Amino acid sequence: MIKAAVVGGSGYIGGELARLLSRHPMISLEAITSRQLAGKMVSDTHPYLREYVDLEFSGSITGEGMDVIFLATPHGASMQLVPDLVRSGAKVIDLSGDYRLKDPKVYQEWYGHEHTDPHNLKRAVYGLSELYWQQVSDSDFVSNPGCYPTCAILGLAPLFVEGLVKEGVAVDAKSGTSGAGMELTRATHHPNCGASVNPYKVGRHRHAPEIAQTLGHLQGRPADVVFVPHLIPVVRGMLCTMYLKLNEDIDKKRLMGIYAEFFRGKRFVRLTDVPSMQAVVGSNHCEVGLEVLGNRNVVIMSAIDNLVKGGAGQAIQNCNAMFGWPEETGLDFPGLGV
Amino acid sequence: MIKAAVVGGSGYIGGELARLLSRHPMISLEAITSRQLAGKMVSDTHPYLREYVDLEFSGSITGEGMDVIFLATPHGASMQLVPDLVRSGAKVIDLSGDYRLKDPKVYQEWYGHEHTDPHNLKRAVYGLSELYWQQVSDSDFVSNPGCYPTCAILGLAPLFVEGLVKEGVAVDAKSGTSGAGMELTRATHHPNCGASVNPYKVGRHRHAPEIAQTLGHLQGRPADVVFVPHLIPVVRGMLCTMYLKLNEDIDKKRLMGIYAEFFRGKRFVRLTDVPSMQAVVGSNHCEVGLEVLGNRNVVIMSAIDNLVKGGAGQAIQNCNAMFGWPEETGLDFPGLGV
Amino acid sequence: MIKAAVVGGSGYIGGELARLLSRHPMISLEAITSRQLAGKMVSDTHPYLREYVDLEFSGSITGEGMDVIFLATPHGASMQLVPDLVRSGAKVIDLSGDYRLKDPKVYQEWYGHEHTDPHNLKRAVYGLSELYWQQVSDSDFVSNPGCYPTCAILGLAPLFVEGLVKEGVAVDAKSGTSGAGMELTRATHHPNCGASVNPYKVGRHRHAPEIAQTLGHLQGRPADVVFVPHLIPVVRGMLCTMYLKLNEDIDKKRLMGIYAEFFRGKRFVRLTDVPSMQAVVGSNHCEVGLEVLGNRNVVIMSAIDNLVKGGAGQAIQNCNAMFGWPEETGLDFPGLGV
Amino acid sequence: MIKAAVVGGSGYIGGELARLLSRHPMISLEAITSRQLAGKMVSDTHPYLREYVDLEFSGSITGEGMDVIFLATPHGASMQLVPDLVRSGAKVIDLSGDYRLKDPKVYQEWYGHEHTDPHNLKRAVYGLSELYWQQVSDSDFVSNPGCYPTCAILGLAPLFVEGLVKEGVAVDAKSGTSGAGMELTRATHHPNCGASVNPYKVGRHRHAPEIAQTLGHLQGRPADVVFVPHLIPVVRGMLCTMYLKLNEDIDKKRLMGIYAEFFRGKRFVRLTDVPSMQAVVGSNHCEVGLEVLGNRNVVIMSAIDNLVKGGAGQAIQNCNAMFGWPEETGLDFPGLGV
Repeated sequence: MIKAAVVGGSGYIGGELARLLSRHPMISLEAITSRQLAGKMVSDTHPYLREYVDLEFSGSITGEGMDVIFLATPHGASMQLVPDLVRSGAKVIDLSGDYRLKDPKVYQEWYGHEHTDPHNLKRAVYGLSELYWQQVSDSDFVSNPGCYPTCAILGLAPLFVEGLVKEGVAVDAKSGTSGAGMELTRATHHPNCGASVNPYKVGRHRHAPEIAQTLGHLQGRPADVVFVPHLIPVVRGMLCTMYLKLNEDIDKKRLMGIYAEFFRGKRFVRLTDVPSMQAVVGSNHCEVGLEVLGNRNVVIMSAIDNLVKGGAGQAIQNCNAMFGWPEETGLDFPGLGV
Repeated sequence: MIKAAVVGGSGYIGGELARLLSRHPMISLEAITSRQLAGKMVSDTHPYLREYVDLEFSGSITGEGMDVIFLATPHGASMQLVPDLVRSGAKVIDLSGDYRLKDPKVYQEWYGHEHTDPHNLKRAVYGLSELYWQQVSDSDFVSNPGCYPTCAILGLAPLFVEGLVKEGVAVDAKSGTSGAGMELTRATHHPNCGASVNPYKVGRHRHAPEIAQTLGHLQGRPADVVFVPHLIPVVRGMLCTMYLKLNEDIDKKRLMGIYAEFFRGKRFVRLTDVPSMQAVVGSNHCEVGLEVLGNRNVVIMSAIDNLVKGGAGQAIQNCNAMFGWPEETGLDFPGLGV
Repeated sequence: MIKAAVVGGSGYIGGELARLLSRHPMISLEAITSRQLAGKMVSDTHPYLREYVDLEFSGSITGEGMDVIFLATPHGASMQLVPDLVRSGAKVIDLSGDYRLKDPKVYQEWYGHEHTDPHNLKRAVYGLSELYWQQVSDSDFVSNPGCYPTCAILGLAPLFVEGLVKEGVAVDAKSGTSGAGMELTRATHHPNCGASVNPYKVGRHRHAPEIAQTLGHLQGRPADVVFVPHLIPVVRGMLCTMYLKLNEDIDKKRLMGIYAEFFRGKRFVRLTDVPSMQAVVGSNHCEVGLEVLGNRNVVIMSAIDNLVKGGAGQAIQNCNAMFGWPEETGLDFPGLGV
Repeated sequence: MIKAAVVGGSGYIGGELARLLSRHPMISLEAITSRQLAGKMVSDTHPYLREYVDLEFSGSITGEGMDVIFLATPHGASMQLVPDLVRSGAKVIDLSGDYRLKDPKVYQEWYGHEHTDPHNLKRAVYGLSELYWQQVSDSDFVSNPGCYPTCAILGLAPLFVEGLVKEGVAVDAKSGTSGAGMELTRATHHPNCGASVNPYKVGRHRHAPEIAQTLGHLQGRPADVVFVPHLIPVVRGMLCTMYLKLNEDIDKKRLMGIYAEFFRGKRFVRLTDVPSMQAVVGSNHCEVGLEVLGNRNVVIMSAIDNLVKGGAGQAIQNCNAMFGWPEETGLDFPGLGV
């Protein structure tokens, strides 16, 4: 058993990490930090963890004696902590947005402040292990993708890798409200969102440049991405519906063949006709489906649990890669289904 | 056309008053106040009122030149305003909790501060006009009932008036989240309430003594009331399921006869088999149904729109009584149904 | 008061027509038909209409003595009834899909059977009165648009009329489940749809050619439309998010100016920053907003109540045009807002 | 590894059994039957089980070669199968209502047909293992409790065992719609239940006599139970709020002490202040809380996942008892929490 710590464990992603790690056969969860809740029982904040996580929140940790550290801290905070933690010798997986955008200028533009750790930014591996398993395996510092980018890129990667996309792509994303985090906001006040579907940050969401960066990297030229996130009256789950034109005629059968080949052996990507949130909620699975319509139009759909494959589960999948274990270690269970 | 003002118009009840008053054939809405939003357009805060309410928020009003004033202010604030407003000659309808509990000591116990206007507290008429139409008609100052008491008491009144209740009553109330108001709270954060039903303030909700006061008054002796409110993942609508034992054998047919007689001519109470939230949402109607089971057990169910019959609509119904109009004036429309 | 009948009044759209007509100041609702429910009270099927619609279902009507007839019958049934009803001298508004697709071959392709009334198909006016007010006013037979086309086209019309769209448009539509009708289906079984967002009939929905037909007509050349409807866990309300590229550089301010000019004087289209389902639910209003992003990408959003502006309300708006009344007659009320 | 079969695996409970059994460390799932789906892949019906349950539906099984058989068949069907299956030597756990009501006359009264297997009815053990662990352990045939009785009885058992209940109890139950099963019904049509809370079968639900039977058994005299189930717009989860009067003065602290003592060592019952559906959904846990109010009134609340502790999970817990394993075997994971 290796030793793990979660830094910033008071939020939904922190709780989800603790929930999943508590059942992981190779990892012992040794510490969870929260500056505000130091000294309080983790299970007071996350009551569902009673009898599963018998820890008090620590105020902070150094990395000493830990084999892996998961950072569930807000952006801005992560880059204050990463330099020391990486130096401590522990492997580090950061779930914030701090190390996702490789260009410090782009980071500053979208996050509103300078990047203070360009050294580690450069060496961070983008932890979408279906694309970058080898790089993640070889790394000691991984930047875990955002929930929207995970869902969108898994649906789009084969098309961009094959260079089949004519111009750009429109990503219409629908997310459960847990993705917005634990902080009280107008947008997540039930009377505002409980009987409605609400677009937000249209063209201004930080996951837009993250999606564009990876898709651009995959196709070898800048990607033209339009991204509109919506909150739906669901707590867990995410669906992306994506629209693009092919640059040549391909029928559905051939396209599905390309997808099947691309994701061969990837335990957590499931090709299907119409992806279902319910089939993946509670699990680390991603469902992907597509339709080819007239005029070379393609619709791609993908679904994940935003807190699992879109966050804590993917971080553990990356950890599995970093320690040389099968990717499904500790994550080998189906979605709730209903 | 008489002239009306709404004091404290930034919240859900204030918006609902403005929405309904904008269509009332006898009332001209002249002013809406909000200290924080003074000078801003009402339709910036309540966008659905664009082209219906063409007013800026006022900082305050005196009552001069107004025929009726609706107070949608928080408890504590209302009793600071009422003395002057009543003196101004306008009729006043207070939608806060300040004038509902007739005993200042009980008020202090449940609201946590002294009542500073015992004079008007004494003369306030409890505006449940299905029970107190004449008193409301004769009054110039009405205290509008809480949403839960409205729903519960309309379902229970015939039994208590007839003295048929053996011991006490348990009121299990389920409310849409708009009843909790516009303020951001843990309880109304979507991830906490959007896929769950959550009891809250068990035995400690301020509407408990309000229900007990009226039921006790109706039966001529103190009423033993247990009240448990729950938030359900619905924005608008309320259902109360209520449990009691009769002190004599009565079958369902006879009991329905008592209810029919009691509510004869009451436009907004509809007797039915199983009340439906959907049948009343968007309207001022209340549906009431019941079952008589073995061992003299009775289950009574009642449903309202918490913002209409449970708030703004009932206040306008009271206003109609105070001005001698038919009770349905400006409220004569069915629920959405679906 | 003119005399109106609703044919096929047992479903959601039939009930909604009855609900709205019961409050219309110029129309007396004289009959509602349902073959299966003939002789039963309308308010047994639609309990929220008790005391508002005091009618039994008729088995059928001829049109004699009626001034206007609303057909809320299924496609296929409408075209059996329309020829006789039109001959009776009553004005007719058909809410089914039978007279929306102008080309009988296209109709047959999408609806799976031959069109048996090509004569009336040719003369039917497409009742999107924001675009075709004059034609509707001059007509005695109107085909009421589908809910999705209403929402999508209102958001897109100015761009297509001005010829600003480079290639095609992707319409990502999210609908409340009432749009799927009263029939029990797997798709609307709560455990399947109550905690999920589900795309359906991807590229195969009958509203796709309807949208393409009108947009093509507006821009004077065939329109390349991709349409993906989704069911969201909401009962009422619809939002369309639409993606396209402009064929020239236009900034948001100028584009909003084009929209403002286009919809000037149109009572039911409201331009806004981010459209809100809640602001329009319960009303005949449509909210439209847009963003201009890089690479000439535009996102347009539009929201309606699928049963009102997307069905019964729009039919009444068309009726108002046909009788020379202001478009808001009987429809002049705001959405619920919350 | 023992060998298990699920009979009647096409519904939600069948799928849930397969989901949980696929991860059970001591059980190998060998067969799932469905007469209608024989020969089709289980994962076509339950897509979330792809790669977890690699079986075709069988048309039927005999019990030969099986160690344990779970019957997820409808009531009426189970009692046709049980006699032969029990004779086969396999242990049998029936999840239908056929063997829950011990008196064949009461069964006939509530289920509408005669009981055809009184022999096994008599020897069936009621599988609420928190109460009857020893009897379940010693048995080869267990009748798994209904979802509502599980939730209600776990909340009430300590009070009834101690003889503290004055008269009767009112059980107000709120269930997610998955409890209603896979069959399409008016009650579970989303437009009817997706924005509402609907009471149903008031005083006529088959779980009422089941609750009364066990509570009566626990207190040694007939129990006066009023039971009203409600559907809430949630897919998974159940909350019961229960109302009764004590026959002596007991404060909350002492009562909580009684509960703590009663449930000592019971892994799946968690005492808490206010039970949370979210804390238990996805798990086999039950949360119980209570408040003592004036006039000896007590409110007890309990929450479970209706498909896990209310069905498939509890059946596996019973299986664990029957095979002498720790009760949490294969069920040792926390709820989703959010």
